[in-house]
Amino acid sequence: MSNKNKKQEIETIGEFGLIRLLTSKIKLQHPSSVLGVGDDAAVLDMGDSQIVVTTDLLTEGIHFDLIYTPLKHLGYKAVVVNLSDVYAMNARPSQILVSIAVSAKFSTDMIEELYEGMHLACELYGVDMVGGDTSSSLTGITICVTAIGSAHKDKITRRSGAKENDLVCVSGDLGGAFMGLQLLEREKRVYSESGNIQPDLSGYDYVLERQLKPEARHDVIKWLDEKGIQPTSMIDISDGLSSEILHICDASGVGCKLYAEKIPVAEDTRKTAEEMGLEAVTIALNGGEDYELLFTAPLDAYEALTAIEGITILGHITSKSEGSCLVLQDGSLAGISALGWNSMKSGD
Amino acid sequence: MSNKNKKQEIETIGEFGLIRLLTSKIKLQHPSSVLGVGDDAAVLDMGDSQIVVTTDLLTEGIHFDLIYTPLKHLGYKAVVVNLSDVYAMNARPSQILVSIAVSAKFSTDMIEELYEGMHLACELYGVDMVGGDTSSSLTGITICVTAIGSAHKDKITRRSGAKENDLVCVSGDLGGAFMGLQLLEREKRVYSESGNIQPDLSGYDYVLERQLKPEARHDVIKWLDEKGIQPTSMIDISDGLSSEILHICDASGVGCKLYAEKIPVAEDTRKTAEEMGLEAVTIALNGGEDYELLFTAPLDAYEALTAIEGITILGHITSKSEGSCLVLQDGSLAGISALGWNSMKSGD
Repeated sequence: MSNKNKKQEIETIGEFGLIRLLTSKIKLQHPSSVLGVGDDAAVLDMGDSQIVVTTDLLTEGIHFDLIYTPLKHLGYKAVVVNLSDVYAMNARPSQILVSIAVSAKFSTDMIEELYEGMHLACELYGVDMVGGDTSSSLTGITICVTAIGSAHKDKITRRSGAKENDLVCVSGDLGGAFMGLQLLEREKRVYSESGNIQPDLSGYDYVLERQLKPEARHDVIKWLDEKGIQPTSMIDISDGLSSEILHICDASGVGCKLYAEKIPVAEDTRKTAEEMGLEAVTIALNGGEDYELLFTAPLDAYEALTAIEGITILGHITSKSEGSCLVLQDGSLAGISALGWNSMKSGD
Repeated sequence: MSNKNKKQEIETIGEFGLIRLLTSKIKLQHPSSVLGVGDDAAVLDMGDSQIVVTTDLLTEGIHFDLIYTPLKHLGYKAVVVNLSDVYAMNARPSQILVSIAVSAKFSTDMIEELYEGMHLACELYGVDMVGGDTSSSLTGITICVTAIGSAHKDKITRRSGAKENDLVCVSGDLGGAFMGLQLLEREKRVYSESGNIQPDLSGYDYVLERQLKPEARHDVIKWLDEKGIQPTSMIDISDGLSSEILHICDASGVGCKLYAEKIPVAEDTRKTAEEMGLEAVTIALNGGEDYELLFTAPLDAYEALTAIEGITILGHITSKSEGSCLVLQDGSLAGISALGWNSMKSGD
């Protein structure tokens, strides 16, 4: 606090800047710490297998809006986004811990609904809720979920293993969750301005479900295992394709060439985007919260990969000097830049 | 929400009631889940050793007041209270994950101070910060720390192993942290009423340090190991001696007889309590946040235990039918009841 020039607002350096600032001094000292900050999850050595552990904090008004988010869905999503981080390490989740802080405006029924969603996710993904903390807050609700999983040490997949000529692949389709959010925000505005017009969300089931009830791609991890494909790097798409591929390229010291026309966008997402005057490719590149898996694999996995339904090959890894590029539909090249998600919004 | 009679405010059932409500339906299904909700930490089977994992959520205005809590101390304490839960399982902590949500009123300098305290705790206790999450909040700051540790499966000590005739022991002294808090709250009132009188906290170093910079009793775990003492049950004192001994008795299906005159209270704590018109024994029984270890051990460990400086034998475990009693200084018996800490305060 002594150096006045040094004092700066968090907004000016953003979330990633703040994380770098806070974690730059960390030196791992415990023999069981295999991998620390900077991937989807930390990796700890526990003998034969390695465990992965990851945590997320969700705050009302920043990460979710209870005006249009049912509590059961919120609970489900809070768990799923953490499991997604475990799968993104090519590991299987086994336990979660859940801490919540709630203000007096919440009744026990509301909290029960939230936990019903969490229990449902636990049941479907075969994980146990083994601990947590419950306390109060002055305003709103904050949820912190920690997920634990494990994998054989040869299976663990980091962001840093992508090699030149590797294929860049993605599961499912992109941009849906973002369009769902845009739709919900639009209806919220209409409702708050008119005061009584009920939101009309019929016909938008797909994008709404992508936003409100995403799934973690455990099936992809299973497929890759069955096909004998060991990804060289992997990350889950929480912030948007652009941001995530740059994380992989940065961590791996490589570049990439992706083809815009290959980026998978669902018909419903495209339709909703058009309706709202947005370009589908832009949405797919920068919209977050799809929780699809982005990974790289050796060229010789090409045939096996194309045989998996729901996996799209977006392009390939290049040398670092070639940069991270997007080949547009007219054949021209554009640099990939991360708009991504920046949670450092204003507040008091 | 359909059953209106069922709707109730969280305040009416309290923190423990809410936890029971939310966790009563949990059935552990994953083979590696050894122990779930209901102890200081969860226990997971990872081959030879078992890992323990615990998490805490701290919210501004509920768990701490930044008016009198230096951020560096807050960071230190947030880590230490989690490590204390790991030690309370007779395990050694190895890693932590830290998530924070902060509002725009915090500068990066302030967050750096907070993390300095956390890094200091990590360094002193030999643990690594391996992950976390950073985001914003609409108001104040929320901190969620998850601690991971491990121990050989024969060493893990739960709350549920206390047996009739076991000795009930506690480390250090009690009530200091509570008196520190009372003092800080008093000075805050004086300051806010007068507007400009600077707080006078000189001469209260001990109780203030107990409140603002508590330590986790890693030394006790080391001593017990060196002396070859395997505690039959253990818990850390976060909510107060009364509350914690009842947790052990409940979980173990036993009763206890503790002697009021044995309860260790530091001279500084006693003096501060008297000054504020409070009774030292009451403070020691019900004041929380001392983070001392309360444990039971077989009768034949008596000699070894009395040889450890800083361990006090408070009494012994009885049959359940005898209840949980305190023998007062005049020889009369009083039932032990948990006032404990109830974080379900009002808010919006």
